[in-house]
Amino acid sequence: MAESMRGLSRTHRCTEVSKANIGETVTVMGWVQKRRNLGSLIFVDLRDRSGLLQIVFDENDIGTDGFDKAGKLRSEFVIAVVGKVEARSGAVNENMATGGIEIRATELRVLSEAETPPFPIEEESNTKEDLRLKYRYLDLRRPDLQRNLIMRSNVATLTRQFLAEEGFLEIETPMLTKSTPEGARDYLVPSRVHPGNFYALPQSPQLFKQLLMCSGYDRYFQIVKCFRDEDLRADRQPEFTQIDIELSFVDVDDVIAVNERLLQKMFKETIGIDVQLPIRRMTYAEAMDRFGSDKPDLRFGMELKNVSDVVKDCGFAVFTGALEKGGSVRGINADGQGAMPRKKIDALVEFAKGFGAKGLAYLAINEDGTYKSSFAKFMTEEQLDTLVTAMQGKPGDLLLFAADEDDIVFDVLGNLRLEIARSLDLLDKNVYNFLWVTEFPLLEYSKEQGRYVAKHHPFTMPMEEDLDLLDTEPGKVRAKAYDIVLNGTEIGGGSVRIFQNHIQEKMFEVLGFSKEDAYDRFGFLLNAFKYGVPPHAGLAYGLDRLVMLMAKEDSIRDVIAFPKVKDASCLMTDAPNIVEEKQLEELGIEISEEVVEAAAESTEE
Amino acid sequence: MAESMRGLSRTHRCTEVSKANIGETVTVMGWVQKRRNLGSLIFVDLRDRSGLLQIVFDENDIGTDGFDKAGKLRSEFVIAVVGKVEARSGAVNENMATGGIEIRATELRVLSEAETPPFPIEEESNTKEDLRLKYRYLDLRRPDLQRNLIMRSNVATLTRQFLAEEGFLEIETPMLTKSTPEGARDYLVPSRVHPGNFYALPQSPQLFKQLLMCSGYDRYFQIVKCFRDEDLRADRQPEFTQIDIELSFVDVDDVIAVNERLLQKMFKETIGIDVQLPIRRMTYAEAMDRFGSDKPDLRFGMELKNVSDVVKDCGFAVFTGALEKGGSVRGINADGQGAMPRKKIDALVEFAKGFGAKGLAYLAINEDGTYKSSFAKFMTEEQLDTLVTAMQGKPGDLLLFAADEDDIVFDVLGNLRLEIARSLDLLDKNVYNFLWVTEFPLLEYSKEQGRYVAKHHPFTMPMEEDLDLLDTEPGKVRAKAYDIVLNGTEIGGGSVRIFQNHIQEKMFEVLGFSKEDAYDRFGFLLNAFKYGVPPHAGLAYGLDRLVMLMAKEDSIRDVIAFPKVKDASCLMTDAPNIVEEKQLEELGIEISEEVVEAAAESTEE
Repeated sequence: MAESMRGLSRTHRCTEVSKANIGETVTVMGWVQKRRNLGSLIFVDLRDRSGLLQIVFDENDIGTDGFDKAGKLRSEFVIAVVGKVEARSGAVNENMATGGIEIRATELRVLSEAETPPFPIEEESNTKEDLRLKYRYLDLRRPDLQRNLIMRSNVATLTRQFLAEEGFLEIETPMLTKSTPEGARDYLVPSRVHPGNFYALPQSPQLFKQLLMCSGYDRYFQIVKCFRDEDLRADRQPEFTQIDIELSFVDVDDVIAVNERLLQKMFKETIGIDVQLPIRRMTYAEAMDRFGSDKPDLRFGMELKNVSDVVKDCGFAVFTGALEKGGSVRGINADGQGAMPRKKIDALVEFAKGFGAKGLAYLAINEDGTYKSSFAKFMTEEQLDTLVTAMQGKPGDLLLFAADEDDIVFDVLGNLRLEIARSLDLLDKNVYNFLWVTEFPLLEYSKEQGRYVAKHHPFTMPMEEDLDLLDTEPGKVRAKAYDIVLNGTEIGGGSVRIFQNHIQEKMFEVLGFSKEDAYDRFGFLLNAFKYGVPPHAGLAYGLDRLVMLMAKEDSIRDVIAFPKVKDASCLMTDAPNIVEEKQLEELGIEISEEVVEAAAESTEE
Repeated sequence: MAESMRGLSRTHRCTEVSKANIGETVTVMGWVQKRRNLGSLIFVDLRDRSGLLQIVFDENDIGTDGFDKAGKLRSEFVIAVVGKVEARSGAVNENMATGGIEIRATELRVLSEAETPPFPIEEESNTKEDLRLKYRYLDLRRPDLQRNLIMRSNVATLTRQFLAEEGFLEIETPMLTKSTPEGARDYLVPSRVHPGNFYALPQSPQLFKQLLMCSGYDRYFQIVKCFRDEDLRADRQPEFTQIDIELSFVDVDDVIAVNERLLQKMFKETIGIDVQLPIRRMTYAEAMDRFGSDKPDLRFGMELKNVSDVVKDCGFAVFTGALEKGGSVRGINADGQGAMPRKKIDALVEFAKGFGAKGLAYLAINEDGTYKSSFAKFMTEEQLDTLVTAMQGKPGDLLLFAADEDDIVFDVLGNLRLEIARSLDLLDKNVYNFLWVTEFPLLEYSKEQGRYVAKHHPFTMPMEEDLDLLDTEPGKVRAKAYDIVLNGTEIGGGSVRIFQNHIQEKMFEVLGFSKEDAYDRFGFLLNAFKYGVPPHAGLAYGLDRLVMLMAKEDSIRDVIAFPKVKDASCLMTDAPNIVEEKQLEELGIEISEEVVEAAAESTEE
């Protein structure tokens, strides 16, 4: 049974009705959240995007037929109600925006009946995520997901409004573009008109936005889908959304300035958070040295201390051995954790090993000032005291040390620091701590490829001060690259781009590309660069992660309407799926024999 | 040679400098449009996104080195100039926004040199489009393309602002989704994680936006890329952009009302055009009858007249034969074209044949009131007079008639009407004539498939008045579907959706789908519909075409930054292209042997 809404017109959303409307007749429409029969009255909580509104059905107002109909209402029925707004007859509900009023129904139409949903439509569902994703259209009815998607829409609107006011143009770049072998794995799209040829979905509009700068568009942005066919981690999706920005005739400070204003507006107007400007800046070198991470979470301390000098002459071979190999010994002070049980410390050691540590040395300072340590026997009392002093240890503290190559030490302690903070509940989601990390290394050496690779991308500008190092010590060259970090998560990153041919050529040389290679890969950009290029720079935010943090969620799936799961499939639509043979024929492609055979076998089993 | 802009900061874009700045020192940056040496002075027109600004180099101001540098400037060099704003010393240029001022340069830096571009960077280029598309980054420097893309950005911004104010949420729907066999051809994306399975790029977010209504989002919009792998016509692209809108708890009038306000705002604030509301509405039946088109261009008259009754007893077998077969005879009056030379009339006959006409009957009314006609000999004087009167013919007019099945008559005369208007230059691009076409047929009979197919899509709501006809005469059922037409181009279309299971089931029955078929194709939507569906309706605009009309362009390629050509390739990036064997292996697909062989042969030749 589905009645028509003909002749009715909604006058208010649920929570748009207020005490100011008392005495008025309104027409509201929405979903039945719940129905209760109370003596001779039937109460229904009506739900829409805005919230809940109580409807009262009284046979005296609505007649016998209407009252009977109301008695048959069940959760998730879609109804239209005409009625009079009254002050609530029963107890006022302080938890409800409309808790002081109710609608006395004079007309009811059941626009759509509903089966019982496979899980209740309620805040903070305990239903397994897989089931919720299969029925995403029901999951999306839950108020927390609705708040998240409304917030996401607001963030996008504010961003566009701000950037438009700042003279940025939103320019769409192609989705069907060219596969370039550098970077992550591309999603490919077979061409029907050119069989054997493929488009690639863009990993980012990087080359196109640089072209737009060459074309004089001056300030570009786009909120745009990007694609990477990589194995998914918790916070990754095969398709994700970038706020992509590029500016001409600017340097690092200009990019940072406009983005700080953007962040300030976004956080203030969406979640009421004041972002203090200027946002703190830290070089990559300092971030690694103090926090063991290029995206340090500054909501808590527990900084790394380099104690290499302190322990260099001690008798503990793990320490001195690491130093002899050119490594370092660094520690963190888990403030007040001196009484941590051995079992928990062992778990931390195992955690550290997961990041490549051979072990983890610890020293607990008992309340009486004595030490309990895995390496006490290798050091003199005095050496231990000096170490404790260097670590600013006091009774009740727990000191943890890693000794290895710098890379490993940073990775181990950086992650250990976060793990301890998590276990101590130091990561307050209500605090928003921003940080610019600057002066990233331009290159990193890939042992796998036996050459330097670009840390950001091959068009990133080296710092002028370091240009000479490109020939002598490329690994030491710093880049005009910057990341914006929020609570230990990189929410955006970018760089000033190379706009001078001679530097770009030098860069390709360092990366081991022949001129031919470079043209094969990036020909149209290099050609464009022959005809007058402005200095330009840009930045891109990961919108999913940004909104996730604003919404205080742990997964980006909670801020995406129709997300995919870890195997890149959609549980609701069953995409990807088998297509008709005819479709593949038209594209001139076939499924490999091995795949067909494997599928046949798995069907047989 | 590329100098750094270090230490300089742009203070103004070119046309942001005005007489108000006279006496100030400014820093401007941009491209050299042209250089002229005039005695002891060098003049440079500097160009950026905003326009042109004249720079004067005088050795007395800038020194010998600077003056020498200025003397070497060539078109498209990128420069930074510091200088003082002065009233123009030479003749004021009224055609230039900054024509009354000039900058006397005190510092010049050449940020980037430029080779001579393959075509000049100038308004209304005569360069062949293929060359311009190969060097799109240079083509995009031309002021007309820049204006178009700036307008496009403004249209998108205004649309989003308006819809946000009206309570619409922008919600992103997936790009990697499921292939459904209904509709146009899908672009497919092979899955690496699930070899043998494919995603499809969306032809539109139709199903997702209906799901969002089921989920209670109430008002949704998105400006979003859609994909159709069809053979391209002049105004088609493999990827195109839709302004996609859906609303809950509404009927036709609500959708039309909000969209009229949107169009009014968009046209007023972008190109200063007042759209008079309400926009005229016309049923599909009337549009066909009067204009032979479901998207009539109302900028001119020349309406179709049905003269079947007038000629039914005449002696002209072409007319009477068509009527006997159930067809009609209709004509248009090409007002004032009575003296059209026979050669031009013959060309119109050929044109008509291209739309399926067997011929075209004509009657020219000479200035003396006599007739010249292809069919005069088959009619009496009186019959001819009656026909001319019915066509409101007067001396100097040309009457053109088609006699055939209605479909063909409409198509022939509808197109003929446009062709004549084009040749007479009646299509004024400065006039914007809007029209809603409503009450489209729900179904059309596909001879090819031997069944009815949905004219809009299978979820379109029949008009309540016609529901009973679904069983008896499905071809006569009108739908709650509407198109918005501008100057004879459909710029958008949509419908009220079916939200009642029993109507949806009936619809599938009429389309000849078994229940199983229907679930195979649209299972997740049908499942969603079990849990409470609000009445909903929507509309989608083709943004490319909309902006094309606003910008008075003839091709959507002129309002797309990086368009593809007719064979769906990109002349700039050479996409699609050959990818590495390894990429295909990872996806578990192969290029068909025939394709490989064909490629090998074409290489050999």
